[in-house]
Amino acid sequence: MEKKLVFTIGRQYGSGGREVGEKLAEQLGIRCYDKEILAKASQESGYCEEVFSNYDEQPVSALLFNVAIGNLNTFVGSQTPISMEAFLAQYHTIESLAEADSCVFIGRCSDYVLRERSDVINVFIMADDESRIERISARNGISKEQAESVMKRTDKNRASYYSYYTEQRWGDAKNYDLCLDSGKIGVDGCVEIILDFAKKLK
Amino acid sequence: MEKKLVFTIGRQYGSGGREVGEKLAEQLGIRCYDKEILAKASQESGYCEEVFSNYDEQPVSALLFNVAIGNLNTFVGSQTPISMEAFLAQYHTIESLAEADSCVFIGRCSDYVLRERSDVINVFIMADDESRIERISARNGISKEQAESVMKRTDKNRASYYSYYTEQRWGDAKNYDLCLDSGKIGVDGCVEIILDFAKKLK
Repeated sequence: MEKKLVFTIGRQYGSGGREVGEKLAEQLGIRCYDKEILAKASQESGYCEEVFSNYDEQPVSALLFNVAIGNLNTFVGSQTPISMEAFLAQYHTIESLAEADSCVFIGRCSDYVLRERSDVINVFIMADDESRIERISARNGISKEQAESVMKRTDKNRASYYSYYTEQRWGDAKNYDLCLDSGKIGVDGCVEIILDFAKKLK
Repeated sequence: MEKKLVFTIGRQYGSGGREVGEKLAEQLGIRCYDKEILAKASQESGYCEEVFSNYDEQPVSALLFNVAIGNLNTFVGSQTPISMEAFLAQYHTIESLAEADSCVFIGRCSDYVLRERSDVINVFIMADDESRIERISARNGISKEQAESVMKRTDKNRASYYSYYTEQRWGDAKNYDLCLDSGKIGVDGCVEIILDFAKKLK
């Protein structure tokens, strides 16, 4: 890629958004960060990755649940709830990786984190329920009923996490530069259109 | 175009969505319907076009306002509020035009009206506020402050109209097949990507 560009990929669960991000990065010869954001954030903040992973794109009410059941260890050694620590650590990790080089970020409010930058293309990948249920069921080796249940729960969690930290609505077209239905044109079709969009940037 | 295809274009006010639809239709040699939907709907239903135009993508609460100020003529000769008559007449017009031939529809819940068809591509065009204000101000010969005010009011009206009749959220990515930011790639860039998307359809 000639000029530096950072891509963020929001995605409905089961839409193949992560695969779109990985293939996009591969074609451009740049890095794609998904769970790696969490690993880097925990290293840099000194927290254990396993602790942070409990809060990865999870609704903030999970914290209240911990309090409700008396699991107050969450707060030990910190005046900030650990969910917020995990968010802030990821925030700083995303900021510094975007500053350093062209790359792709999967989810984790990265579009919001990088909202002040002018070298970012924000993408959202969605698909019809049927395509997503099929993909989840095949990938995870579970029944279609189970896949539908996981899909609904995960989307709800992502929407809740996103809206809590950004005060915007997850999946609202106006937060992105382009949104694509992978059920209609497949993962490769999405990658080609994103590359074309990047070339057309004014 | 080899196979029959119908395009619906939802659009933020001032995003150039109508221009995208017109250029798309021109390139494909098919018809683009914007205000013409209203004219056809009024002809077919026997209502005067001027009456219908008061309800064109307007929030339904405008009806309650008419009642509140005692303008009950709205109801004369009909058991259905005229806002609903106008919506239903447009609904049937969109249905029959889509059945007949390839074409482009601008707004008016056309994505929702045609939700059962498999030959439809639903597009949403958005842009950052700055680009939109500039476009509205230049097009309508008004100040940027006035343009901003018209932009906010029109978007609010469109969102309200859409959500009332479809029970979906206007501008929610999952209601569309692709959403494009015309502020980033221009009207022509959007047209090219929509054409490419249509070619990639599985």
